[in-house]
Amino acid sequence: MTAKNTTALLQRLRAAMKNNQYVCEKLNAYIIPSGDAHHSEYIAPCDMRRAFISGFTGSAGTAIVTDNHAAMWTDGRYFLQADQQMDRNWTLMKMGMSKTPSQEDWLVKVLPEGARVGVDPFLLSIEEWKRLSSKLESSGHKLVAADQNLVDLVWDDRPEPPSNLLMVLSTKYTGCPWQDKVRQARDQMQEKGAAVLVVTALDEVAWLFNLRGSDIDFNPVFFSYAMIGKEYVKLFIDESKLDNTARVHLMLDADKNTEDYMKVEIFPYDDIIAQLKVACQEVGKEKIWLSDRGSAALGNVVPDNMRLTQQSPLCLNKAKKNDTEIKCMRRAHVKDAVALCEYFAWLEKEVPKGELNEVTAADRLEQFRREQEDFVSLSFDTISGVGSNGAIIHYRPCKETAKTLTTQELYLCDSGAQYRDGTTDVTRTVHFGTPSQHEKECFTRVLKGHIGLSSAVFPNGIKGHQLDTLARQHLWDVGLEYLHGTGHGVGAFLNVHEGPCGISARLSLTESTLEAGMIVTDEPGYYEDGAFGIRIENVVLVKPTETKFNFKNKGFLTFEPLTLAPIQSKLLEPSMLTEKEVSWLDDYHTTCREVVGKELELQGRTEALQWLLRNTQTLG
Amino acid sequence: MTAKNTTALLQRLRAAMKNNQYVCEKLNAYIIPSGDAHHSEYIAPCDMRRAFISGFTGSAGTAIVTDNHAAMWTDGRYFLQADQQMDRNWTLMKMGMSKTPSQEDWLVKVLPEGARVGVDPFLLSIEEWKRLSSKLESSGHKLVAADQNLVDLVWDDRPEPPSNLLMVLSTKYTGCPWQDKVRQARDQMQEKGAAVLVVTALDEVAWLFNLRGSDIDFNPVFFSYAMIGKEYVKLFIDESKLDNTARVHLMLDADKNTEDYMKVEIFPYDDIIAQLKVACQEVGKEKIWLSDRGSAALGNVVPDNMRLTQQSPLCLNKAKKNDTEIKCMRRAHVKDAVALCEYFAWLEKEVPKGELNEVTAADRLEQFRREQEDFVSLSFDTISGVGSNGAIIHYRPCKETAKTLTTQELYLCDSGAQYRDGTTDVTRTVHFGTPSQHEKECFTRVLKGHIGLSSAVFPNGIKGHQLDTLARQHLWDVGLEYLHGTGHGVGAFLNVHEGPCGISARLSLTESTLEAGMIVTDEPGYYEDGAFGIRIENVVLVKPTETKFNFKNKGFLTFEPLTLAPIQSKLLEPSMLTEKEVSWLDDYHTTCREVVGKELELQGRTEALQWLLRNTQTLG
Repeated sequence: MTAKNTTALLQRLRAAMKNNQYVCEKLNAYIIPSGDAHHSEYIAPCDMRRAFISGFTGSAGTAIVTDNHAAMWTDGRYFLQADQQMDRNWTLMKMGMSKTPSQEDWLVKVLPEGARVGVDPFLLSIEEWKRLSSKLESSGHKLVAADQNLVDLVWDDRPEPPSNLLMVLSTKYTGCPWQDKVRQARDQMQEKGAAVLVVTALDEVAWLFNLRGSDIDFNPVFFSYAMIGKEYVKLFIDESKLDNTARVHLMLDADKNTEDYMKVEIFPYDDIIAQLKVACQEVGKEKIWLSDRGSAALGNVVPDNMRLTQQSPLCLNKAKKNDTEIKCMRRAHVKDAVALCEYFAWLEKEVPKGELNEVTAADRLEQFRREQEDFVSLSFDTISGVGSNGAIIHYRPCKETAKTLTTQELYLCDSGAQYRDGTTDVTRTVHFGTPSQHEKECFTRVLKGHIGLSSAVFPNGIKGHQLDTLARQHLWDVGLEYLHGTGHGVGAFLNVHEGPCGISARLSLTESTLEAGMIVTDEPGYYEDGAFGIRIENVVLVKPTETKFNFKNKGFLTFEPLTLAPIQSKLLEPSMLTEKEVSWLDDYHTTCREVVGKELELQGRTEALQWLLRNTQTLG
Repeated sequence: MTAKNTTALLQRLRAAMKNNQYVCEKLNAYIIPSGDAHHSEYIAPCDMRRAFISGFTGSAGTAIVTDNHAAMWTDGRYFLQADQQMDRNWTLMKMGMSKTPSQEDWLVKVLPEGARVGVDPFLLSIEEWKRLSSKLESSGHKLVAADQNLVDLVWDDRPEPPSNLLMVLSTKYTGCPWQDKVRQARDQMQEKGAAVLVVTALDEVAWLFNLRGSDIDFNPVFFSYAMIGKEYVKLFIDESKLDNTARVHLMLDADKNTEDYMKVEIFPYDDIIAQLKVACQEVGKEKIWLSDRGSAALGNVVPDNMRLTQQSPLCLNKAKKNDTEIKCMRRAHVKDAVALCEYFAWLEKEVPKGELNEVTAADRLEQFRREQEDFVSLSFDTISGVGSNGAIIHYRPCKETAKTLTTQELYLCDSGAQYRDGTTDVTRTVHFGTPSQHEKECFTRVLKGHIGLSSAVFPNGIKGHQLDTLARQHLWDVGLEYLHGTGHGVGAFLNVHEGPCGISARLSLTESTLEAGMIVTDEPGYYEDGAFGIRIENVVLVKPTETKFNFKNKGFLTFEPLTLAPIQSKLLEPSMLTEKEVSWLDDYHTTCREVVGKELELQGRTEALQWLLRNTQTLG
């Protein structure tokens, strides 16, 4: 990797910071966050401003440019990469190291008295804005909303914002007309005394209207906002993205007497601010509900006493899948399992030849998935890691450095797809030769944790952080651990990572209680630096379960695996498993064989079927 | 129970609220919180203002009196009791019920425009003051610090604040001279840029100076504040509490050339405010460190930009017991076990006669404890509950209604003591006849949880909320649950409940990570309303453990039981225990027999020894 030369760029940016054409008063510093205006996890190329200005392309980082400094804050995953990609204009601020100053402390140190710090208010959340603003103010500085993004000004070949056509998702997939989702939201608004709900998260807009897009890789969403009032629904979007099917779906040109008619008004994407100002004029004593992840640009429009800043109700509504969505997710996972059986059967034949590498293997897996009905795209970049590469948790292989798959090393493959009927995310770790006793012990402990979580029974009302340890305890017993969460929410043909539920000791990732119909992953692992990585990941459904007792009528829940791909028994040390664990595994493999086997037969995939039968033998 | 007639009292209080002799401007409402000026869990009789003004004696509740209303907020544990103890002047506000307004909302509803709400600022924490004050201000009202407590004004026979002599605890018990504790605190202050630390929690003052008192039942603390500066140590206390031993211990009259000399200045208890004002003048650019639990009376003295409001460093220093404290705690627990063996041996003989009730039994237990060396007092009111009374989690038997101990029902006994060398807290549940199969199943599941937590191995750096589920999972498996935390920190001859560590899904109770030397309880339970209660509680020490691996050199921890009292095997269903669980129990009982048996022998307590031997037979 060579560093990007940013000297000229920074010169132009600093000039823009002083140019009254773009800023009311000269700025002493300019902050360039990583995200887009919707707090998206994955962002479109046109939003990769921090990467453009610095050269550093990692997924997390914040740049601050002052008259004399340019500094980049990022976390441990990216220290090496950032160092390689940034030229000498930049100082790397290693987050998590005790001597690294926070952005605020650093600013206070380097700024002249009474300085003005600019930022695009669309790129900071309401909370971030508040915190930073009050910190700067207490030191005599001022945080300034710079309406014109200064990086865009100096980005000559900035990609156009995408303008792909939308896809309408029928009730066959969604189980709920968008009109009913609007009504549900209105009920929830009424409970909170809110007259208007502003929807800012892209997956919430997509879910609300039963529409899907392709503006961002892997996430079937589209740039937009929505505003739900008591009497209106406003959709802010580039109207050219709507074809006739979408217009009919949204009843844009329908007669008011049409059954289930509900008026939707289309506004240009950028009109959100103007319309929010109108809403502030109209609401009277009621509140305007903004998501706590909404941008400061929106937050600053609504006076404090008029604003309800809280998690959007759509976030939870979306997380609790209805029966149709669950049925569709099941179907997507069966197809995904077919592709996985094909893949692993094929790998078993090909790996010993020594010609497959991490990239060519992953490409073949994508090919198998593409053969499945309703395939749309991958749901994230495949993690395909051999041996030591498997120990790099967010590894993404590239052509130049891809390792060869062998019969000597473990192979970790974390992959998933978007189908019209659902989103998948699965990790399997396999060995094509003879694993060592140590690898088997570690694999078995990871599996014990996976089973411990998957088979847990727990009362309604608990949060995911209360289950995280069930997946870790067997590793802890011998002094092992993994440094990531155990599970995240999964969308239904939506983002592969979604809130508000999850399984993690980090409380921010498990905001909501676990409720029936939620779908999360169960993915403990173990990673030995420079040697190997192990992860066993299923997507699981939260569902009610019958228990012998029912304390205070709470009702109890458990998980059902939706992912149905064999777990390699060659990697097990059976003597370490309890009877209960053996019987879980046998039941799981029996289900895989029956359900996926039937589909393989239907699809006439004989070799994969033979592989499945061989790999789902019971232990017990 | 009959209600207290509060008509005249309320009349006098309302008159005081309008009397310029006591308040600068007339008050429209007056808030009477439950606590004392030190955020103590247990309070002295002179601080029981809320109980005095209302008649309601429960441990939690806030009263608010306005010109026309008197309202009491309390939680579900106390609805019945509050209703019985309060007369018709009072409205009961049932917290946790959906229609109950918050105190702020209620105030805003009943107050006239621009009202003044008074409160004794010593009785609200800094955070509570901030929250309430900003809520009231946003509705046009004002929260006012009423320096003269108005309840005290109308409380004619208010008990005197206690003025008992202090006890000096030698290094034999504390393992650390108070001078070293001051030095440690000064280092921590320097790290945070604080020139002064204000110590407000009574157990922190007691711990800091290696002094103990008896101003509050069960908690060996004394009314005081401390202020640590770079060059001074100030102790705010009624000087008559210091006898000559205490004066020598504090080196009050010592020569400056004495070894380990450190100057301590004694000020009257009430001088804290004046001295804090002096400190504000002196500190310059550095901070004054106040605990987040410090009172608003102190908080309001220190300007915002000069104040560091954070957990006191003494809280964590105190929680991590040193080797001497651990040795002493072990010793206290052996003596406590001797008393318990005596008690249960005696109960086995006496219960069948049918003449013992919950109170007379508990009294005998106290007697057995008193016979042990260095006994000081109980550490809390003994919970002694037969059958259905065992299901009342905070049950305290009283003479009039005490149930008889029988061979038909379970008996739950949660008790503990203060010894000069340590604090104990232990719960055992026993049956003197033949338990039902259902009782055995429930008991066994509680025990499985107790063992699961007690034998857990976990990395450094995790918090107690990550272990809570280990104690619940076997109950959850069959749809059972208990509605309290699993464990709390325990002081070393200090408060039986102390922070900042604990084992609970509620995060506020597990603020700190678990570290070697911390001492907590492990006390899962199960309660069947109207039938029985089960709890198995040990005090356990967090200690390092050797593991086969040591991931990233984190170091791993586990628990060691300090409580050494047999667990009744009659209540077990052995077929439900795993091999690992059986071996934990056998090891535990072997330790009980060896360690406590030796002490029983030494003390010549033959019957209790025989009982111990019978009750520590191994299962395996």
